[in-house]
Amino acid sequence: MSAHQFQVTAKDSQTAARNGLLSLPHGTIQTPCYMPVGTQAAVKALSPEDVLACGSEILLANTYHLMLRPGADHMVKAGGLHKFMHWDKPILTDSGGFQVFSLADLRKITEEGVAFQSHLDGSKWQMTPESATQIQHKIGADIIMAFDECIPYPSPEKYVEDSVDRTTRWAERCWKTHQESGRDNAQSLYGIVQGSNFPHLREKSAKALLQFDFPGYAIGGVSVGEPKESIYEVVRKTAPYLPENKPRYLMGVGTPEDLWECVERGMDMFDCVMPTRIARNGTALTRKGRVILKNAQYTEDFSPLDPDCSCECCRNYTKSYLRHLFQAEELLVLRLVSLHNLQFMTDVTRMIRQAIVENRFLEAKKRFYLDYFGGTPPFYS
Amino acid sequence: MSAHQFQVTAKDSQTAARNGLLSLPHGTIQTPCYMPVGTQAAVKALSPEDVLACGSEILLANTYHLMLRPGADHMVKAGGLHKFMHWDKPILTDSGGFQVFSLADLRKITEEGVAFQSHLDGSKWQMTPESATQIQHKIGADIIMAFDECIPYPSPEKYVEDSVDRTTRWAERCWKTHQESGRDNAQSLYGIVQGSNFPHLREKSAKALLQFDFPGYAIGGVSVGEPKESIYEVVRKTAPYLPENKPRYLMGVGTPEDLWECVERGMDMFDCVMPTRIARNGTALTRKGRVILKNAQYTEDFSPLDPDCSCECCRNYTKSYLRHLFQAEELLVLRLVSLHNLQFMTDVTRMIRQAIVENRFLEAKKRFYLDYFGGTPPFYS
Repeated sequence: MSAHQFQVTAKDSQTAARNGLLSLPHGTIQTPCYMPVGTQAAVKALSPEDVLACGSEILLANTYHLMLRPGADHMVKAGGLHKFMHWDKPILTDSGGFQVFSLADLRKITEEGVAFQSHLDGSKWQMTPESATQIQHKIGADIIMAFDECIPYPSPEKYVEDSVDRTTRWAERCWKTHQESGRDNAQSLYGIVQGSNFPHLREKSAKALLQFDFPGYAIGGVSVGEPKESIYEVVRKTAPYLPENKPRYLMGVGTPEDLWECVERGMDMFDCVMPTRIARNGTALTRKGRVILKNAQYTEDFSPLDPDCSCECCRNYTKSYLRHLFQAEELLVLRLVSLHNLQFMTDVTRMIRQAIVENRFLEAKKRFYLDYFGGTPPFYS
Repeated sequence: MSAHQFQVTAKDSQTAARNGLLSLPHGTIQTPCYMPVGTQAAVKALSPEDVLACGSEILLANTYHLMLRPGADHMVKAGGLHKFMHWDKPILTDSGGFQVFSLADLRKITEEGVAFQSHLDGSKWQMTPESATQIQHKIGADIIMAFDECIPYPSPEKYVEDSVDRTTRWAERCWKTHQESGRDNAQSLYGIVQGSNFPHLREKSAKALLQFDFPGYAIGGVSVGEPKESIYEVVRKTAPYLPENKPRYLMGVGTPEDLWECVERGMDMFDCVMPTRIARNGTALTRKGRVILKNAQYTEDFSPLDPDCSCECCRNYTKSYLRHLFQAEELLVLRLVSLHNLQFMTDVTRMIRQAIVENRFLEAKKRFYLDYFGGTPPFYS
């Protein structure tokens, strides 16, 4: 396949779930996929080799953070993000939109873009669709994202509609900037559908973006405080407007159940900091649910976190040892549990892809839920 | 070689430097060696695989810490420290003496032993030569140490002499406990020479310990605040009293220059937290001296820490990236620089051993110092 080609390789007949192969300049990835988050050019507590060993084929980095530190021009001098962080597989960068609206201080939105102050040192910055795209050109990820306004939940319908329209106009400016750069062989620019929890505004946003024929589409502005059912409902109603032959990326979402629910509704790509973040707090994801390693019940538990897991943590260490390391505040454990949780997420995507190949997605989901939720699964669909 | 055999394999003709092979239940190690410190059953920020990749053949763990958490009986349930921490190469445990005197609160020394309060939770403990030995039996290291009194520097001569005599009596009780345990095939008990900076007391201590024919001898009570020259002088005057055919271990000492100076004076084994501790503060050891990664001069330095180093950190990452990770407080960098510093220490021991094989120890030391100290080496000998 040529770079940036997406091919659906299998479909589940009862749901919208599908498998795909997405060809990118730094390699071909399988979808559905979960992308670990390397916010500041590193997946927290892990090396690129660790991330690779967990089966990850693509990771995400944050434009907002990298722009502030070490800076976009630094990325150019370093030969791009891949070389800087020693990861030669695919990377996706978000546009900075989400972080500008969640982390930055004193932001002011105009038609031109967003003015804000850095959360690191209060320095003043301006981000526009043009600059967000150009910064992502300098970072050099395989997939880059259009600059969007990411609004809080809930927001009034009128505000959401105005915001959707502005995000569409911004998407066009990103698209133009990208077209004029001549970089569309090196990097794919994806559009982001907004519209909060208003189905007709999601529809409007999606349809407006289709005119630019982006090579991929994301659903953004979810996982911003709304209940899970609302996320799943937005996805169920929005995914059908996105082209069948393009990858569909659900931004910032990715618990194991989110993956099952949203693949079922037609999504292909996911990212979420949760698996590595909870790892650093001592919570492991396993086939039988979450394991809180600090709990006293694991003091003398000399079995691995998950006997079915092939990761370095499960091959070599017991829950008793991991718990000891947490009690003793030993750094090693942050890496080991992060490794495990990342392996678990890629194992879940593998299970999902296998279920789709075998056309038994719902059955596989039910079986996963029965183990994972201990017999009382929340059935969303 | 049978377990616990020590064989001198090469000697430098101008100095007391020598190479050896020390056979232990979990493998044979080369001396001179530097032992990384795994205080709480983990070398900080590193996995056992990392430690192995750095060329370490033996590591040290702290009896005091393991006794308090997770506890000696826990070690038995876990199948011993090797299994607990997933390291099947040799381990040495100190006796807890140093930590009781440096970390614990409200300690009270009697002929029987030491009563103290845990630095973790204030709980009350008693350590005797017998219990220190029995706890080390439960931990199960290849080499265990006699329980000694570790006194501050400087101390009055009279106190030091009384302390040396008590440490000798304690060593005898450790020896008896070990003999009676029938564990001397599984674990070697080493004696510890004390005597502060009084040569005649060091001599007295060494000669008194020789009667027990320990399979190895350590010089303890150094690196407790005295100037480097004083450490080297103690070693120069004490090492000759230790048997030629037994390994000689200098406790708690181990900068690169310490290794050169003390191997020159006849020592074989070293341990020190410095290489991994300074790594976590952003200081790397290189052939050209220390690199303070936080310094602005490395912002755009796209070369590795040390081009002659084969470690994962130097193979894959630039100083610019490492500096970025420190600025961004990314956990990964703690592991990478720890890896590098550990590799550097084992590289130094390799250089030393090679120089001894080639009978050009002093020349090699001079060459190392010229690079390491940038042309103005402190010549101690």
